[in-house]
Amino acid sequence: MPTLILLRHGQSQWNLEDKFTGWVDVDLTPQGEAEARKGGELIKAAGVAIDACYTSVLTRAIRTSWLALAAAGQTFVPEIKDWRLNERHYGGLTGLNKTETAAKHGADQVKVWRRSYDIPPPPMEAGSEYDFSKDRRYAGAVLPDTESLKTTLDRVQPYWEAEIAPALESGKTLLVAAHGNSLRAIVKLLFGVSDDAIVGVEIPTGNPLLIELDAGLKPTAARYLDEGRAQSLPAL
Amino acid sequence: MPTLILLRHGQSQWNLEDKFTGWVDVDLTPQGEAEARKGGELIKAAGVAIDACYTSVLTRAIRTSWLALAAAGQTFVPEIKDWRLNERHYGGLTGLNKTETAAKHGADQVKVWRRSYDIPPPPMEAGSEYDFSKDRRYAGAVLPDTESLKTTLDRVQPYWEAEIAPALESGKTLLVAAHGNSLRAIVKLLFGVSDDAIVGVEIPTGNPLLIELDAGLKPTAARYLDEGRAQSLPAL
Repeated sequence: MPTLILLRHGQSQWNLEDKFTGWVDVDLTPQGEAEARKGGELIKAAGVAIDACYTSVLTRAIRTSWLALAAAGQTFVPEIKDWRLNERHYGGLTGLNKTETAAKHGADQVKVWRRSYDIPPPPMEAGSEYDFSKDRRYAGAVLPDTESLKTTLDRVQPYWEAEIAPALESGKTLLVAAHGNSLRAIVKLLFGVSDDAIVGVEIPTGNPLLIELDAGLKPTAARYLDEGRAQSLPAL
Repeated sequence: MPTLILLRHGQSQWNLEDKFTGWVDVDLTPQGEAEARKGGELIKAAGVAIDACYTSVLTRAIRTSWLALAAAGQTFVPEIKDWRLNERHYGGLTGLNKTETAAKHGADQVKVWRRSYDIPPPPMEAGSEYDFSKDRRYAGAVLPDTESLKTTLDRVQPYWEAEIAPALESGKTLLVAAHGNSLRAIVKLLFGVSDDAIVGVEIPTGNPLLIELDAGLKPTAARYLDEGRAQSLPAL
């Protein structure tokens, strides 16, 4: 039967520095690397044989997949990288310190940008030092200049439907190593979580979420592989 | 114009232990990891933008590609793994210590197996602890039970012609991170090296060999990126 493992990347350098990261290609810290290895060890201990691995085009998710696959003894698994699994694009907040941003715009406004479903931050200005339009990894793509969780889901969903869902429907076991918000989008699609509830769903880092699905891709069981760190799951 | 970088993996645990490795999935040592990172730093310093990376289904080559891509700042590059880029299959010698094998079969016989073009070692016996036929990474493939350099080339060549050559012909820059003998096969194909001469071509580990090609995939220039460790190159 189709099986999906969701793995959120662990600590990055900008998590440490408390900055809005989004699409900036910040690497994992040593702690983030250890979280990825632990995730792979949990997959190995669970005896799960992965058929293919999907990740974003951001180093912190890609290296999480690499470290996890190596720790799971499954380096040979095919890997597919796509920008539509990227973290939410934080627009004009990208690169700003979260505390400073709250001081400038007010904590309530920042909370709206961070925790509302469909209100995006101001767009990133053209020519920003973080402008991604010239980055060759996005060549040919029509890129957003900011995203809410809703518009993040709007670009995850077509990729899910075109690439990931068909592979699951053929009975495969897939690993998706990605980011807090692209994984929220997948959880919302799979579990039918409401707009209001999804903003409160916090997927833990480095703790593989194993979801068993029926032939129609309806979840039939879900569990975190590190049960001691399990968090609440959306209702099946 | 088409550009090809060949990168041979560095020291593995069985290099250290002086064993015939072939298809056994032995990992890199810390020295082998450092060689891979150095290779990536050289690619970065040369300013080469890789479009896609090809590697085998063996961990020591895959992790070499990962470490090199990370050091080159190009983790997002698409990766394709295929068993036809594997190291030569060492048949019945797999797992044996090279010195002990020479004592048993005679140094001359071992030299023939290691350094002749078309004489394979005895086949691996069915049920050997190294039997790869049950390994899921080879599912659906018709596998050899031993290989000479010639028969290694016989399975590299169709993959080269079907997958790598067309990508080069479209003008791409490709990294192939692989093994001594699968890289020898590619060098023989590209440079037209004779059967006798190719067994003497030793591609250094961790030193990217950058080959510029014309539209017909004839090499027009070739250089090692670490010039201080450059070895002799086949004539253009």
